[in-house]
Amino acid sequence: MGPVSRVKIPDASPFTLYNLPYGIFSEIGKSAGRPGVAIGNNVIDLAGAWEAGLFEGLGIARSVFSAPYLNDFMALGRKTHTAVRERLQEFLRHPAVFPERATRRLLLPMDEIQLHLPVRIGDYTDFYASEPHAVRVGKLFRPDNPLLPNWKSLPVAYHGRASSVVVSGTPVHRPKGQVLTAADSRPQLLPTQALDFELELGCLIGKASQQGEPVPVDSAADYIFGLVLVNDWSARDIQRWEYQPLGPFTSKNFATTISPWVVTWEAIRPFLVAPPQQDPAPLPYLKEACRELPDIELSVAIRLEKGRGKVVTRTRSTYLYWTIAQQIAHHTVTGCNLRVGDLLASGTISGPEEGAQGCLLELTHNGTRPLAFENGLMRSYLEDGDEVVMTGWCERNGMKIGFGEAKGLVVG
Amino acid sequence: MGPVSRVKIPDASPFTLYNLPYGIFSEIGKSAGRPGVAIGNNVIDLAGAWEAGLFEGLGIARSVFSAPYLNDFMALGRKTHTAVRERLQEFLRHPAVFPERATRRLLLPMDEIQLHLPVRIGDYTDFYASEPHAVRVGKLFRPDNPLLPNWKSLPVAYHGRASSVVVSGTPVHRPKGQVLTAADSRPQLLPTQALDFELELGCLIGKASQQGEPVPVDSAADYIFGLVLVNDWSARDIQRWEYQPLGPFTSKNFATTISPWVVTWEAIRPFLVAPPQQDPAPLPYLKEACRELPDIELSVAIRLEKGRGKVVTRTRSTYLYWTIAQQIAHHTVTGCNLRVGDLLASGTISGPEEGAQGCLLELTHNGTRPLAFENGLMRSYLEDGDEVVMTGWCERNGMKIGFGEAKGLVVG
Repeated sequence: MGPVSRVKIPDASPFTLYNLPYGIFSEIGKSAGRPGVAIGNNVIDLAGAWEAGLFEGLGIARSVFSAPYLNDFMALGRKTHTAVRERLQEFLRHPAVFPERATRRLLLPMDEIQLHLPVRIGDYTDFYASEPHAVRVGKLFRPDNPLLPNWKSLPVAYHGRASSVVVSGTPVHRPKGQVLTAADSRPQLLPTQALDFELELGCLIGKASQQGEPVPVDSAADYIFGLVLVNDWSARDIQRWEYQPLGPFTSKNFATTISPWVVTWEAIRPFLVAPPQQDPAPLPYLKEACRELPDIELSVAIRLEKGRGKVVTRTRSTYLYWTIAQQIAHHTVTGCNLRVGDLLASGTISGPEEGAQGCLLELTHNGTRPLAFENGLMRSYLEDGDEVVMTGWCERNGMKIGFGEAKGLVVG
Repeated sequence: MGPVSRVKIPDASPFTLYNLPYGIFSEIGKSAGRPGVAIGNNVIDLAGAWEAGLFEGLGIARSVFSAPYLNDFMALGRKTHTAVRERLQEFLRHPAVFPERATRRLLLPMDEIQLHLPVRIGDYTDFYASEPHAVRVGKLFRPDNPLLPNWKSLPVAYHGRASSVVVSGTPVHRPKGQVLTAADSRPQLLPTQALDFELELGCLIGKASQQGEPVPVDSAADYIFGLVLVNDWSARDIQRWEYQPLGPFTSKNFATTISPWVVTWEAIRPFLVAPPQQDPAPLPYLKEACRELPDIELSVAIRLEKGRGKVVTRTRSTYLYWTIAQQIAHHTVTGCNLRVGDLLASGTISGPEEGAQGCLLELTHNGTRPLAFENGLMRSYLEDGDEVVMTGWCERNGMKIGFGEAKGLVVG
């Protein structure tokens, strides 16, 4: 692929010509967003690109690019997505093809726009697919029995709350909830003292499936539109008291942050790697002809007030035991239908080594070993004024793409 | 209130002048539905009523009544809902006010229309709010510890699957899923052998709340648009294997049936009764100035193939320990936002007495004591060809309203 000549792409930008992620943007202060694509420090206005004829002959309705969510675009199918991607790459590489005059308002500087929630989320499902995470958390909640007998037979998951999924940058209110403290015999309503992040990878569904018809594991990738970073904020003290027997509810329903730019499956493809075979072998409906996982370097930084802070987690998406395809196949095995815009998150991604834990519950051993920051500041769990910033990068053979940031500031 | 003179209302009809429930209907064979109101054996076409000037001066956009879901109407607020109700009652009682000529196409016979899913469900939350149910199920799963310590402190709930909520009459496919049978050491993928119904009451939210702002328990009723019957189909063998530690997932995500007519909170109000005070007293955020629950007689019939069948469950909504207001207050206590169209179901409603159990798991003691039907037919769990039919009725002082049916046929 040749160089981009229409815009300058800074070396450190996650938004290269290989990437071209989709988001919903508006001019600053305007609430009605519309679809755009990130390139370097700019956003391509897709409604404008449509007007300029960039997508001529692809059969895309104008309304797709003035919608306040990406869902209509996501539903167009892989063939159209690939064609749009090619047109955009051509546009960026060959100014002569689309002369400046016709397209001068198509590129907006990122500092003149704001980003919105990119997708009208249908259902939000949260898996529990990283083994080092499941083992460490299991030890804290059930020391004698960390990995339950079903964990290696099926990708454990629960339904999450879709209404409170927010775009990166939205402040997160410290929740009050029912907590049973060690000192009390009855629970109290208290602001959580154990506010945590969870580093996850989110898959956004771009193709609907029919109720009653399971998606075969080897077709599951066809249903993926793209990926985002996910912070599934959790209140551990509330979770501990409420989670039996039906799972977490108010401890996680107050907010989930996703990154604003959806990195498409087309952009992710060159970064797929083969994870190890599973032992025990999964049941046939979960057995893949070709196992693959995106290889994404993930990190979490905590920025304290006054700019102090540090990276607390460095890990990789390849620590997932269950692939996205397996998650989709299991999700639909009983006939549950997928809709365009559904979010399937991986669950916390942790590596086995120290510093690769994807949440504070693991990093601080449930608050008993606080993390040290500069000037003697310590953190067992998040405090008001802390900002959690997640990033993700893929790199291979000199090709590099990134997710940008999924960040959220804790407010009291 | 005077008699209805415009249409004849059969004595056995659930859809009296007091009721006026909302649904989405179309002419038979057409897929695009629009809002209507049930009265006797007829449906009032609201788009037509708007055209005829029935709602003049109420400030309702025409598009509200041509939408394929009720959500836009639900969002209009209680004042408008009450005004529309009054206009409809006037229309039905006083033909002279709206002459036949202007309104002759407004009433469609029910046998000429079909019903669709009435609401675009946002999130679907399922509570676990009936004590006799929680105790009986708890005994089966945890004989020594039926009611967990948190149960009387908070309305336990989990997030359900919204995509697979279907309208009454939609066939339900027997799901295949992972089951660990007593004879095996490893799970297998099998058609469920323990397909169950769950009799529940569903609350549809008509007013959005803001993220980060809990709904006070004494304002919670303002957020209720209306109620429906809910059958939360469950595969008990799949549930048993998968549910630890995060709760039910594929065992319930394949289908949930709701009744087609949404009975409004205005219609329910005369049937509210005061449930007993709770012991122990709930925390202040769950303490109601005035506790109230709708008093609804509920029943479940199983119709076997060839028309045989019987009522297997008769119970009442007053067996709920946690009121709908408490469910809403707890749901939002950590700051989770509600959206118009969210469905909050009660969980299985069971009474303490024999025959008042709201699911087969309880009725048949997990299949060990099958129910007897005529001609020697027995049922431990549902078989292909069985149809489950739920009904609900409110009656007080000669005033009577009903929910109609929530039914679903099991297909292989």
